[in-house]
Amino acid sequence: MGKDWNSAMYWRHLLVLSLAINIGMVAKVVLFHGDEKEVLLCPVEPGAEAAHLSRVVSEGSSLELEVASGVGDHGRVVDLDHGDPTMYEMFWKRMDEETTIVIPGWQSISYFSDPANPCWFLEPELAKQAVRIHQVVGNAVTENRYMVVGTGSTQLYQAALYALAPHGEPGPMDVVSVAPFYSSYPLMTDFLKSGLYKWAGDANLYDKDGPYIELVTSPNNPDGEPRTSAVNRSQGVLIHDFAYYWPQYAPITSAADHDLMLFTVSKSTGHAGSRIGWALVKDKEVAMKMTKFIELNTIGVSKDSQLRAAKILKATSDSCKHMSNPKVENFFKFSFNQMTERWAKLRAAVRKSGLFSLPDFTSDWCTYNQQVFQPQPAFAWLKCEGEIDDCQGFLKKHKILTRCGKHFGASLKYVRVNMLDRDPNFNLFVERLSTMSLIE
Amino acid sequence: MGKDWNSAMYWRHLLVLSLAINIGMVAKVVLFHGDEKEVLLCPVEPGAEAAHLSRVVSEGSSLELEVASGVGDHGRVVDLDHGDPTMYEMFWKRMDEETTIVIPGWQSISYFSDPANPCWFLEPELAKQAVRIHQVVGNAVTENRYMVVGTGSTQLYQAALYALAPHGEPGPMDVVSVAPFYSSYPLMTDFLKSGLYKWAGDANLYDKDGPYIELVTSPNNPDGEPRTSAVNRSQGVLIHDFAYYWPQYAPITSAADHDLMLFTVSKSTGHAGSRIGWALVKDKEVAMKMTKFIELNTIGVSKDSQLRAAKILKATSDSCKHMSNPKVENFFKFSFNQMTERWAKLRAAVRKSGLFSLPDFTSDWCTYNQQVFQPQPAFAWLKCEGEIDDCQGFLKKHKILTRCGKHFGASLKYVRVNMLDRDPNFNLFVERLSTMSLIE
Repeated sequence: MGKDWNSAMYWRHLLVLSLAINIGMVAKVVLFHGDEKEVLLCPVEPGAEAAHLSRVVSEGSSLELEVASGVGDHGRVVDLDHGDPTMYEMFWKRMDEETTIVIPGWQSISYFSDPANPCWFLEPELAKQAVRIHQVVGNAVTENRYMVVGTGSTQLYQAALYALAPHGEPGPMDVVSVAPFYSSYPLMTDFLKSGLYKWAGDANLYDKDGPYIELVTSPNNPDGEPRTSAVNRSQGVLIHDFAYYWPQYAPITSAADHDLMLFTVSKSTGHAGSRIGWALVKDKEVAMKMTKFIELNTIGVSKDSQLRAAKILKATSDSCKHMSNPKVENFFKFSFNQMTERWAKLRAAVRKSGLFSLPDFTSDWCTYNQQVFQPQPAFAWLKCEGEIDDCQGFLKKHKILTRCGKHFGASLKYVRVNMLDRDPNFNLFVERLSTMSLIE
Repeated sequence: MGKDWNSAMYWRHLLVLSLAINIGMVAKVVLFHGDEKEVLLCPVEPGAEAAHLSRVVSEGSSLELEVASGVGDHGRVVDLDHGDPTMYEMFWKRMDEETTIVIPGWQSISYFSDPANPCWFLEPELAKQAVRIHQVVGNAVTENRYMVVGTGSTQLYQAALYALAPHGEPGPMDVVSVAPFYSSYPLMTDFLKSGLYKWAGDANLYDKDGPYIELVTSPNNPDGEPRTSAVNRSQGVLIHDFAYYWPQYAPITSAADHDLMLFTVSKSTGHAGSRIGWALVKDKEVAMKMTKFIELNTIGVSKDSQLRAAKILKATSDSCKHMSNPKVENFFKFSFNQMTERWAKLRAAVRKSGLFSLPDFTSDWCTYNQQVFQPQPAFAWLKCEGEIDDCQGFLKKHKILTRCGKHFGASLKYVRVNMLDRDPNFNLFVERLSTMSLIE
């Protein structure tokens, strides 16, 4: 099988996907968003973030081939579709000693981490370090909360839906979020056709009576705006997704203090491959139901990754306090400076090209950085101005892969661009953007 | 928060759970199994494996307190409810050098492991070592298969349901398995009230026409019997759960060769805390749909645990071949001998007490062990004989926690007992069993 996978299958796979992309590029496809049916120009399969992801990944590989065959940067596809946080690698390479984890083969064999905790699979050291990082940064209230660990905040989002939706009702509970919303939310909500909850689209258009769940992502994915709840009716419950509420991306204006708050190492320290997120939950019943979801879904969460995440979070807190080593660079200063530099480069390229625009943000005082600054989000919400109607398609012609605005409940004139890729890819992106013109 | 969790919360939690257990013990509760409503004597909350688990765990903790306060083994509760494979710790302690994993802080940051693979989050080293262990043991055909990695085989089971159920149909597809079946299957199938699939109970009682999914667990959990499909109608698709098809538990009679086969490190090497399973899948479309499920559910699987599982599997294969070190003990010989010894002790205790019975197994030739032997399963499917109608309740009086037969679609006269706990707990269990009598 190894042989198959490494040679014949690999090539066949690339060929099939390459053909699929070509077909996709000329076809108009239909995307289902809740009850709406929308005709899209975006070259994606119906309702499939996943297919979208696979496709882009495969394209990534095909350009690796191009590079290998000597085409070089000119022909290289820059894949900024998904939010892979590889920018952080360079920091952690400098912190090798403090962050390397050693796990002997006999350790962590049991399913259980902390039987006395309602979330019995939560490693106590991760709980401790997650609380500490919140105290260091000041971005969330941790007192009188239950913590639930998840396989990324993706699993915790689904656990929250399971916990908040009533189980005795005949129909599913509506789930809404203000557009543009994270493109995976509709798919994660609806992919199992659950009888407990269903995606009901843009919270600003939501006018039904009765109970509902509103998702508040702040700073928002894709556009980086600070958000508060929009519907504000008596029967609503809220999930706050704070994946990006860290001081490299946005001013920390106060410690968030909501009923159900989601965080993840994927975007805070950049360890997406570990799949570790945590929820801070006020209500014990809700925390126990979320725990039950994770029991039934995956019987807990990788202990190895929990222990590793704990070590990374500890090193991060230590770096902020200069506790372990005075020579150690503060992680949030490093990442803040990276983001400042990248956003300056991006805005300069956008100005130079004249074809695009970016959101204007309001500056605010950051209690962590102790300075006023504008948000510098993990994604750029880029708009094609003038006569370019399909922004994703336009950028694709220039071998830049981005995610089409339609997936976020917005227009084709928008794309989401990952700002956290490695330096060579980011620099190639802004270089191309600055020299783009309508005439090919 | 740390303080809360370690002191006040801990005690309050134990108190609340202790009260809940007391209430549970005297109450008759209702368990929903698909469309059936059954009145149970088993002291569990409605339909909640998870609650069941939490409860037992908490009891586990309360006895740790008893031990700490000097009550000793006599008063100690032995928790053999869930299948925690801690027996294996002692082996891996002796293999420290070969199995310790070191992960630097900058490694495995990306979401992606192998973009050229349909399962883009599968670590190539895990794929390689999983194929190798199957070749060493001879328990599964790996040629011309796609591999999908999951957060335990639990997630892969749900991914398989998602992949095999038709998505365009108005109603959910029936899922069946011959009773006694793994107690989590009904719960994992129905907990989200999916419109794609639903639990339809005992495969032997299934008489509907149309498409269905049949789960074949072999050796079976809970009773250890080898299994083949039971329904055998044209519109059926099969999922083979081979979690226990390893040579310490059952004779390997041939290399399994089915369309969709599930395996996990939890039961093969005992690394349940890592949450790593893998599926071998013949059909590419099915493998891609399973991959899509895992993308939407958890955006991949912990890389740290995949790399660790790869290292453990490599050490296991090496131990079988005596490749790395001639002094190294063969893992499957060690675990086979452990299981032989434990089953001999258990059968002796059952004979001595006169109150119980165990399944009789048929011996078979094992191609791996090169000898004839009887199955020696990871669980004992213990029956209370004579006038004891509630076997779980009876054992609980003797401070032995087991899982009631009703959860497996069987009678209250049966319980499932974990055979993989640490030596002191297992020995205390058989000691108590051998001296039990009806008169208290």
